[in-house]
Amino acid sequence: MAQISLSRRLRRTPFSDGVEAAGVKGFTVYNRMLLPTVFESAEADYRHLKSHVQVWDVSCERQVELRGPDAARLMQMLTPRDLRRMLPGQCFYVPIVDETGGMLNDPVAVKLSEDRWWISIADSDLLLWVKGIANGYRLDVLVDEPDVSPLAIQGPKADDLLARVFGDRVRDIRFFKFDKFEFEGRELAIARSGYSKQGGFEIYVEGSDIGMPLWNALFAAGEDLHVRAGCPNLIERIEGGLLSYGNDMTDDNTPHECGLGKFCNTHTAIGCIGRDALLRVAKEGPVQQIRPIAIDGDAVPPCDRPWPVVAAGKRIGQITSAAWSPDFDTNVSIGMVKLSHWEPGTRIEIETPDGMRGATVRDKFWI
Amino acid sequence: MAQISLSRRLRRTPFSDGVEAAGVKGFTVYNRMLLPTVFESAEADYRHLKSHVQVWDVSCERQVELRGPDAARLMQMLTPRDLRRMLPGQCFYVPIVDETGGMLNDPVAVKLSEDRWWISIADSDLLLWVKGIANGYRLDVLVDEPDVSPLAIQGPKADDLLARVFGDRVRDIRFFKFDKFEFEGRELAIARSGYSKQGGFEIYVEGSDIGMPLWNALFAAGEDLHVRAGCPNLIERIEGGLLSYGNDMTDDNTPHECGLGKFCNTHTAIGCIGRDALLRVAKEGPVQQIRPIAIDGDAVPPCDRPWPVVAAGKRIGQITSAAWSPDFDTNVSIGMVKLSHWEPGTRIEIETPDGMRGATVRDKFWI
Repeated sequence: MAQISLSRRLRRTPFSDGVEAAGVKGFTVYNRMLLPTVFESAEADYRHLKSHVQVWDVSCERQVELRGPDAARLMQMLTPRDLRRMLPGQCFYVPIVDETGGMLNDPVAVKLSEDRWWISIADSDLLLWVKGIANGYRLDVLVDEPDVSPLAIQGPKADDLLARVFGDRVRDIRFFKFDKFEFEGRELAIARSGYSKQGGFEIYVEGSDIGMPLWNALFAAGEDLHVRAGCPNLIERIEGGLLSYGNDMTDDNTPHECGLGKFCNTHTAIGCIGRDALLRVAKEGPVQQIRPIAIDGDAVPPCDRPWPVVAAGKRIGQITSAAWSPDFDTNVSIGMVKLSHWEPGTRIEIETPDGMRGATVRDKFWI
Repeated sequence: MAQISLSRRLRRTPFSDGVEAAGVKGFTVYNRMLLPTVFESAEADYRHLKSHVQVWDVSCERQVELRGPDAARLMQMLTPRDLRRMLPGQCFYVPIVDETGGMLNDPVAVKLSEDRWWISIADSDLLLWVKGIANGYRLDVLVDEPDVSPLAIQGPKADDLLARVFGDRVRDIRFFKFDKFEFEGRELAIARSGYSKQGGFEIYVEGSDIGMPLWNALFAAGEDLHVRAGCPNLIERIEGGLLSYGNDMTDDNTPHECGLGKFCNTHTAIGCIGRDALLRVAKEGPVQQIRPIAIDGDAVPPCDRPWPVVAAGKRIGQITSAAWSPDFDTNVSIGMVKLSHWEPGTRIEIETPDGMRGATVRDKFWI
């Protein structure tokens, strides 16, 4: 495995000092920012995440802020999901598509008020698309990246930890809703959300200067809860079917191919830039789609490039994320498979770097 | 130093197999693609680059292709550099700015024909800005990322190596011009350009399938020239004043702050989106600007975050790239310095992670 060469271009975060002190062993780069990938080991991190509570530096989920009279109109132009009934205090998972229906990002939209939104983005410079659209359509809206860095608290003890720092009211936050809480005189939005299936929160830390004070307060409060630094865990996110933009789908794919057709209200999302293209896709249906796939045999190597999926000697898809799951005693994976072979139970073959492996298409993810 | 965790999202290139076989020791991530940073050591790579010839996998310089009747109009909307006299076969270094004059990228524009352009980009998803503008202004142009991966041949023996593979006609290519050459039946554009001051070429490798055949042909032809795999070298690029977008400037900065005022023809670049803002900047002049700065003392540590520049106890700038230069026997660096302290010879202080260092503003880069 190679080293990562650090430079200013790979941005540090308000929590990087804490992450390093906690002994981070690996990084990836996400939105040109450092994202930890492993502390003890992928498997030890996974076990701990499922048992206790972790603090994740997910500052790389940068925010695109929309402010002004046309903010809501612009937000609807970006996504085929109908946002008319979305209220301030809600978070919506929204595929973002271009004029051909290709996915540009799969962020969470955070509605702060009618004329102020955050888009908490996956790995692409969505800011540039949104700025280009706002400029081209002459919209009355400001678009920029504010000094907001999400910190995720994930795991079964997340409620207990957060209640100690912010009070018991955090327990009342419902899934994909947020409320405001005070820390050192600052109002912070805290949502019940996060990139794991173990429950927890994301704190939208506004102002880099309170990053380490908050990090330290969480660790001081949670010692007996076995709180420790963590990060999105490859094994757990595949088990749970949490897609990764850039890994499992790119701008080549429509939301329908990604199983996100339910977020495409193409008949009512008036104004969405990709609506015409997606109406067509919705009518005809996708010809390939993301599926959970169990791969036979011992632990597969790291999936650092698409692995061809074949059947009867023909390529019928690709695997884009894979890992050995200790809990399910199999290799869990995410792949894009053609219509002809996507029925649950279908046997397929995977070209891994270690050779061909048998595999089975599943009906659903593991958790 | 931490490890880099590989995944499909950090895209491999057509040359990655060659890069790995050559013993790459470190990577950075650039346009969500792997970019090698070191083979033997930064200093050994530097010495070799200045003496022989290297083959660099700079596939991460992705291309944004503009095709169609409005391609030239769109290209001029993106940049304040006047493109009216640019001819097919020319390459222009072009700052790209948003409506406020903030730099979104500093790519090389490659004019293939009146209605077909490539933009060979630095590290930001410029594709999204260009697509957003094309869509918003309803331009008659196709914008996408083609399967084109630049391979750079850099060093004093670059002409000799390339002539052996493509014929002596490569010697006639003039600086920032390109011509077409055949390899295995494919026409490839080869430009005299590259991210070093040692001379050389960039081959725009169209079609991933010929990546490794070309890589292997170059190594087979250059054994006695001591050809080896290399990469942009931190020391050499600072000595030569080659700026790095994301390191030395961001969208916070205007071209004028980056010393790129000469590429801003704001009076004639009609249609440029940031023209109004830049006319204002040109009139008033920047209040801070990039400068070469020599830092006293032993080798500085890696510059992985901006280092404050201070004078008389006040912050008057920041260092964003720094390295020890064996040839110039000093620490070479690039910093952004306020008007009050940017005169050559001005003594300033730098807050490095190892403590305060004296430093001197220089009149020009080292080579």
